[in-house]
Amino acid sequence: MNYHPTKKIIENIPERDMIPRTKGITMVMDKGMSVREAEDFIETAGHLADFIKLGFGTSLVTKNVKEKAALYQQAGLKVYVGGTLFEAFAIRGDVDGYKRYIDNLGLDAVEISDGSAEMVHEAKCRFIADFSKNYTVLSEVGSKSADVEIPMDQWIGMMQKEIAAGSFKVIAEARESGTVGIFDKKGSADTTLIDGIATNLDPNDILWEAPLKSQQAWFIKHFGAHVNLGNIAPHELIAMETLRLGLRGDTFFNFLPEEIKNRTIE
Amino acid sequence: MNYHPTKKIIENIPERDMIPRTKGITMVMDKGMSVREAEDFIETAGHLADFIKLGFGTSLVTKNVKEKAALYQQAGLKVYVGGTLFEAFAIRGDVDGYKRYIDNLGLDAVEISDGSAEMVHEAKCRFIADFSKNYTVLSEVGSKSADVEIPMDQWIGMMQKEIAAGSFKVIAEARESGTVGIFDKKGSADTTLIDGIATNLDPNDILWEAPLKSQQAWFIKHFGAHVNLGNIAPHELIAMETLRLGLRGDTFFNFLPEEIKNRTIE
Amino acid sequence: MNYHPTKKIIENIPERDMIPRTKGITMVMDKGMSVREAEDFIETAGHLADFIKLGFGTSLVTKNVKEKAALYQQAGLKVYVGGTLFEAFAIRGDVDGYKRYIDNLGLDAVEISDGSAEMVHEAKCRFIADFSKNYTVLSEVGSKSADVEIPMDQWIGMMQKEIAAGSFKVIAEARESGTVGIFDKKGSADTTLIDGIATNLDPNDILWEAPLKSQQAWFIKHFGAHVNLGNIAPHELIAMETLRLGLRGDTFFNFLPEEIKNRTIE
Repeated sequence: MNYHPTKKIIENIPERDMIPRTKGITMVMDKGMSVREAEDFIETAGHLADFIKLGFGTSLVTKNVKEKAALYQQAGLKVYVGGTLFEAFAIRGDVDGYKRYIDNLGLDAVEISDGSAEMVHEAKCRFIADFSKNYTVLSEVGSKSADVEIPMDQWIGMMQKEIAAGSFKVIAEARESGTVGIFDKKGSADTTLIDGIATNLDPNDILWEAPLKSQQAWFIKHFGAHVNLGNIAPHELIAMETLRLGLRGDTFFNFLPEEIKNRTIE
Repeated sequence: MNYHPTKKIIENIPERDMIPRTKGITMVMDKGMSVREAEDFIETAGHLADFIKLGFGTSLVTKNVKEKAALYQQAGLKVYVGGTLFEAFAIRGDVDGYKRYIDNLGLDAVEISDGSAEMVHEAKCRFIADFSKNYTVLSEVGSKSADVEIPMDQWIGMMQKEIAAGSFKVIAEARESGTVGIFDKKGSADTTLIDGIATNLDPNDILWEAPLKSQQAWFIKHFGAHVNLGNIAPHELIAMETLRLGLRGDTFFNFLPEEIKNRTIE
Repeated sequence: MNYHPTKKIIENIPERDMIPRTKGITMVMDKGMSVREAEDFIETAGHLADFIKLGFGTSLVTKNVKEKAALYQQAGLKVYVGGTLFEAFAIRGDVDGYKRYIDNLGLDAVEISDGSAEMVHEAKCRFIADFSKNYTVLSEVGSKSADVEIPMDQWIGMMQKEIAAGSFKVIAEARESGTVGIFDKKGSADTTLIDGIATNLDPNDILWEAPLKSQQAWFIKHFGAHVNLGNIAPHELIAMETLRLGLRGDTFFNFLPEEIKNRTIE
């Protein structure tokens, strides 16, 4: 079912599924919006997002998080706190404290990552399996440090195991800056790594962090309108969705039939 | 008439016309603000802007656009949808659908551009002439692709013809990024092109896209406080206006009489 | 006293003083927020900031500044207008007009700077001494121009004299861009200068402008969780606070005891 009225207004636009959906997923990063800002976000663009990540440890510092999370959930969005916060509890040996914390916020999704802390991969998969009994699990692969280089076969192996362990999607790390993991320090896509991952997994199982517009456009051109994208800034969500729909210069021709694409307007 | 109380407070500040005005025009790009955010914008800074562009195809994806456009219009601002959306309809052979769409939104301004689609220039001028009967027309020159280089005499010729055809102002393309058209890939102004344009047209007929602060400062230093500027982010409008008024470091000395400019404070 | 509930939730997090405080101070730059946006800011993050700077001359252009300033003050924040506005009045020979202006806004803090105008340093110290009788004074050292290089001993000497004259803190200039003064054109910290300053003054007397995340992380790693930081964008305040608390990747290990830091999660 088409979620917005474009179909009645303009033709040859990719049809997007309504939320909740399993493909063409968008994850938005909230770094501390107020309750009213969240209301505004939901009003204009809530129908365009699937997941809200309360980035890294911001939820511990922001007031009224519980009320805000409930608003998002009422709008059909799944809310979770950043994986770094899971790691912060885990390295302190207090995963139970983490569970209490997110349960108290009323969250039903989690991110299991090892981007900062050292974690045995079997332990990570055990966390995924454990949490997936009661929560939607997103797990993340990739270091937050630009100095750590993970070989491609290790990316692929970890992702495969994490999906097998119960992850709904595996996230490919890029940070809020878009300059590590699947991107180089200048923010350009590591094509070899990305294609290697996409060839060896179901592309639909992967959620690519792509905070910069150039990165979003690159993924949409490379994988199509329904690629799963994450770390989208709240105020960039609508602009990003127009990239998916071919309604911005960067992807203007990408979803047009040949006879329209090659037309000169006279 | 002076639009703000600076005159009673501090001397030697450029006097700006109140809206509606014909010089010193500012166009702001709204990429999907909520109704409440638009109210906030109008409250603090609505008196500083002339045009609101609902950037590229964002209006098709955002909820409550009609209500928001009405709010802007009640505050005296003209609202139009990005030229890329006009091109999206035009390449599909459906300019009538575009008219129905903007009429339904209650808009009385349009942007006619050919930054993405191939368009015969006579056709562009015909659209301008046609729309200018019922709408305020802004037309835009310049490609959205950094790979397309348009010779200076072509820029000038197109702009002259578009003004003659009925454009209220011609927009010089820079995109939201400020890295194409009148700027190079690093965002630096193409001085030769800009001066060539300004020499061969009435500078007041041109609206320069200048999303970055360095670009805004450059234009204000080069052409003065009343240069027409566009693609200003809503939250940067007030900061940009202080550049016009010499109330920020970059243009601190630009509008001061010599005896003040050379003063050492003792 | 701990200002947020992290202590009950997660262990080994730096304890921050509540406002009003004298160390670990944060100055946020408001470039023209609406009253409602200021309410939202206060709701979520007001407990994390000490000073609100109404950047450069924006207060002269924004509507409802007086009402907004009162809101901030009721929340315990000190509000002042950017030093450039003081300089704009001073170069016009109208410091009395400046006083009337800020008194009318109900402000009880000022910034005395010479980043744009030429000012004899004795005059600057006289202004500091004069204003410090009735206002909290922040004074700023450093030019807003990347072309002006001030020798280190001059930075230190000016800062020492300004503290002696009555400044609550001296601000080390970086601008909103973070590319002048204590940073190079690419935004990297001038370590020699910064360490020179910190060695010759009480580090707690200095407020470092650090608008970029990389700069905030650098200062927090270099000087600890309670370093005084300024020019923080309102929507980045919460994210910056997580850097102080070790709740983001960049400072994840910085405040952990050795036995936790070296732990591998199994």
